[in-house]
Amino acid sequence: MWLLFEQPLNEKVRSYLRVEAVFNQVNSHQQFQLPHGELAFFHCLFELMELIDRADLRSELLKDIDRQLSNIERWRQYPNVDQQQLDLLANDFKRWQQQLYKLTKPTSELKADRFLAAVRQRLTIPGGCGSFDLPQLHFWLARPLEWRQQQAQQWLALLTPFTASIEQLLAILRGSSQWQDSIAMAGSYQAASEKTIDLLRLRIKQEHGVYPAISAHRNRFTIHLVNNDTGKADHRNLPLQLCLSMEQQ
Amino acid sequence: MWLLFEQPLNEKVRSYLRVEAVFNQVNSHQQFQLPHGELAFFHCLFELMELIDRADLRSELLKDIDRQLSNIERWRQYPNVDQQQLDLLANDFKRWQQQLYKLTKPTSELKADRFLAAVRQRLTIPGGCGSFDLPQLHFWLARPLEWRQQQAQQWLALLTPFTASIEQLLAILRGSSQWQDSIAMAGSYQAASEKTIDLLRLRIKQEHGVYPAISAHRNRFTIHLVNNDTGKADHRNLPLQLCLSMEQQ
Repeated sequence: MWLLFEQPLNEKVRSYLRVEAVFNQVNSHQQFQLPHGELAFFHCLFELMELIDRADLRSELLKDIDRQLSNIERWRQYPNVDQQQLDLLANDFKRWQQQLYKLTKPTSELKADRFLAAVRQRLTIPGGCGSFDLPQLHFWLARPLEWRQQQAQQWLALLTPFTASIEQLLAILRGSSQWQDSIAMAGSYQAASEKTIDLLRLRIKQEHGVYPAISAHRNRFTIHLVNNDTGKADHRNLPLQLCLSMEQQ
Repeated sequence: MWLLFEQPLNEKVRSYLRVEAVFNQVNSHQQFQLPHGELAFFHCLFELMELIDRADLRSELLKDIDRQLSNIERWRQYPNVDQQQLDLLANDFKRWQQQLYKLTKPTSELKADRFLAAVRQRLTIPGGCGSFDLPQLHFWLARPLEWRQQQAQQWLALLTPFTASIEQLLAILRGSSQWQDSIAMAGSYQAASEKTIDLLRLRIKQEHGVYPAISAHRNRFTIHLVNNDTGKADHRNLPLQLCLSMEQQ
C-alpha cells in the first residue's frame, strides 16, 4: 500500500491544508454518532473558527478565486473543453467570492452565540464540560439527534464560503500535475524547480516502514526518510512517487 | 423525560466526575470508528493524563479505597448479605490499592512514549497534526484498525487503577441514597444537611425547558432554575427530584 504525504511550500497552502483537515474532522463529528463524542465536534468547530479568523486567509482566498476565474476564461478557448463544466465551476467561485466579500468578520455570528461562547470557554479545561460546569450543554445534549445535527449544520454553514472554496482550490491544485516515479538514494532526495512550488505530494510504500521528514521552501525541497521504529534516519535506496503542483499564475 | 444533573460538593468528587467524563469519551473514541476521528482520542487521552497527574488524586483515592475496605468488613456482619459479592468487591479494591501504591508517577510511562509526546506537542495547534506536521502520526493512522485499537487499549490500561476504582467509588456513592420528590418554589430551592454532602443529584423534566445553576459547598446548596431559551432565571414552581449522597465515614 502506498502512503500519501503532502507538504505545503508556503503559508497560504499550509493554511488551506489545515482548514481542510479540521473541516474533515468537524464534518465527521457533526453526525454525533459516538456516545460521549459530542465535545469533539465543538473542539473542531472552535479550531476551524480560529484558522479562518487568521489574518490574510480571506484576502488570499479572494486573490486565488480571482485567478481561477481568469483561468476559467482562458480554458474556454481550448478546443473540446466542457463549457458546461466550466460554467458550474465559475458559478461556484463567483458565489463564494460574493459571500467572502461580505464576510469581513467571518466568525462573528458564531462568536456572538451565547451557548457556543459558554462551551468554548470551558472546553480548554480537562473534563471541564460536565453537567455541573455547563448545565446548558447538558440540556443541549438531551435534545433529539436530528435537532442537534441540524443546528451543527447551521453553524458550519456560516463558514462554507471558506471551507468549500478551499476544498475546490485544493482539488484544482492537486489535479494540476502528474505523478512521477523516483528513488530516494541512501534515504534522501532533493530537488529544485524553476517555478515556485505550491504543494509537494509524496507517496511511499507502507511496507518500507518509513515516513518522510521534509524541509521545503518556495522552489526547493529535501526529503529525508525516517525509520518509524527507531525514529532515526533510514539510509536505504527506496522508491518514491512525487507530484509537484506549481503556483498558478 | 427527566434530565439528570450532578453537582459535586467538594474537590475530590469534582475530580472523580471529571475523570469519569473524560474516560467515557476516550473509551468511545478508542474504537476509531469515525473517519478523521482519531485526533479526538488523543485529545481525550492527554486530558485524562492531566487529570490523573493532579496532586492529591492518588492519595485521595487510596484513602477512599481504605475506607471502602473497612466498610466491606462491616457489611459482612449484616444478616443475609451476599458474602461472595463482597469478596469480589474487596478483591477489586485490593488489586487497585496495590497498583496505586506502586504508581507513584502514574503517567510517566505514557509521557516517555516518543510517539505520544510528538502528538501531544502538536495537538494544541489548530489543524497542526497534518501529514506535513506529524508524518509519524500519518504513518500510524495507516496501520490496521485492530492494531490501533490494541495500542490504544494498552495505553489506557496503564491508567486503569485510576479509572476503574473511580468508576466503582462513584457507583457506590450514587447507590448510597434515595431519590426524593421535591418542588423548586419560584424557580429556586435551597437546603442544608447536618452531614457533609459529597454529591447532589437532581432530576428535572426536559419539557420545562430549564437547567439548574447550583451553588453548593459541604453541607448546603442552592439551586436556581435558568430558562434555556432566555438564559435568565425562571420563576415558576417546578417539580424536582433530589438525591443527596453523604460523605462516607
